[in-house]
Amino acid sequence: MVQRGLLIIVSGPSGAGKGTVCKRLAELMPDLWISVSCTTRSAREGEIPGVTYFFKTHAEFEQMMKRGDLLEWAQVYSNYYGTPRGPIEERLEQGYNVVLEIEMQGAAQVKQQFPQGVFIFLIPPSLDELKRRLIGRGSETQATFNERFGSVEQELARMSEYDYVVVNDTVEAAVERMMAIITAEACSVPRHLDYYHNLMKGAY
Amino acid sequence: MVQRGLLIIVSGPSGAGKGTVCKRLAELMPDLWISVSCTTRSAREGEIPGVTYFFKTHAEFEQMMKRGDLLEWAQVYSNYYGTPRGPIEERLEQGYNVVLEIEMQGAAQVKQQFPQGVFIFLIPPSLDELKRRLIGRGSETQATFNERFGSVEQELARMSEYDYVVVNDTVEAAVERMMAIITAEACSVPRHLDYYHNLMKGAY
Repeated sequence: MVQRGLLIIVSGPSGAGKGTVCKRLAELMPDLWISVSCTTRSAREGEIPGVTYFFKTHAEFEQMMKRGDLLEWAQVYSNYYGTPRGPIEERLEQGYNVVLEIEMQGAAQVKQQFPQGVFIFLIPPSLDELKRRLIGRGSETQATFNERFGSVEQELARMSEYDYVVVNDTVEAAVERMMAIITAEACSVPRHLDYYHNLMKGAY
Repeated sequence: MVQRGLLIIVSGPSGAGKGTVCKRLAELMPDLWISVSCTTRSAREGEIPGVTYFFKTHAEFEQMMKRGDLLEWAQVYSNYYGTPRGPIEERLEQGYNVVLEIEMQGAAQVKQQFPQGVFIFLIPPSLDELKRRLIGRGSETQATFNERFGSVEQELARMSEYDYVVVNDTVEAAVERMMAIITAEACSVPRHLDYYHNLMKGAY
């Protein structure tokens, strides 16, 4: 019997670097599957439909919500973001670790349905660095920047809803910490009770 | 202010390989301090007083117990084993991670005093392998072997009192998992609340 995979939720303030860190993590861990979200926002330059996001119309997205096809969904600014439930359940059953890179509203919803998930809060090393990253992302208007930066303090206060905090000082260091968390979680006692029962039956 | 170190308790059945694994861990992590225990048992060949153990007479050991100088102590077969409290508190305050390699009776005592410790249960990959290791340790008499092996089932059932299970299939793999656990624990949310408060004050 295959050991069920871990559901790893990566969230944190806008601009913390969730996308970059998760992309690098997937490169280093081939047995990890990054969930692809749905969104109603427009594709940014370089984003590939079905890889970066499934891009949906508002009507399509609302249909998925009604059918219960979404593990979580959130409205961020004027757009919907959501996570299709089916592919995740399937991958977990197959033994893959699944990473959800989601906004904090979505993470809170996932926690209600998957309290046994591994909740990682990714934060920037400093507020100045966060400001630089939000400005550097050329797509932001000044109004969007102000709105995002203004909510950072509130967002950081939600750290206590998570299991781990990973400071994203450099991508490599952050990814290394996340890999350590995944290894450690795989060693947690509840995940070894089957192993123990088999050991006592002389299976190993 | 220095971040207080982690207290890491490594325990498990006799013959699981605690000593070898902890020695290798210390070689790879220079900011880790392995606590030196006291014992009333005789030194085995190659053991160095003050490094492997502090070797004490029964009278000396009982004096330390009375004075409250021991963080934990246990009687295993006809001998006492114990952990001096002072040096550990000192190293933790200095920011060192401290490893306690102890018998399971001792680990249970430490848990009462340090529930925030990181409790790792080291197990052999199979019962046959455990048997081979106990026989391979030439110092065991047949009677001691029988006594030790007979208690294994009981010992393994106590897995649930620990935070993590590390299977000692190879020393390198076991040590890698333990290093991951230490890194992950350093990312736990409670250890980041100070960081968060300083971040909000603009300290970084």
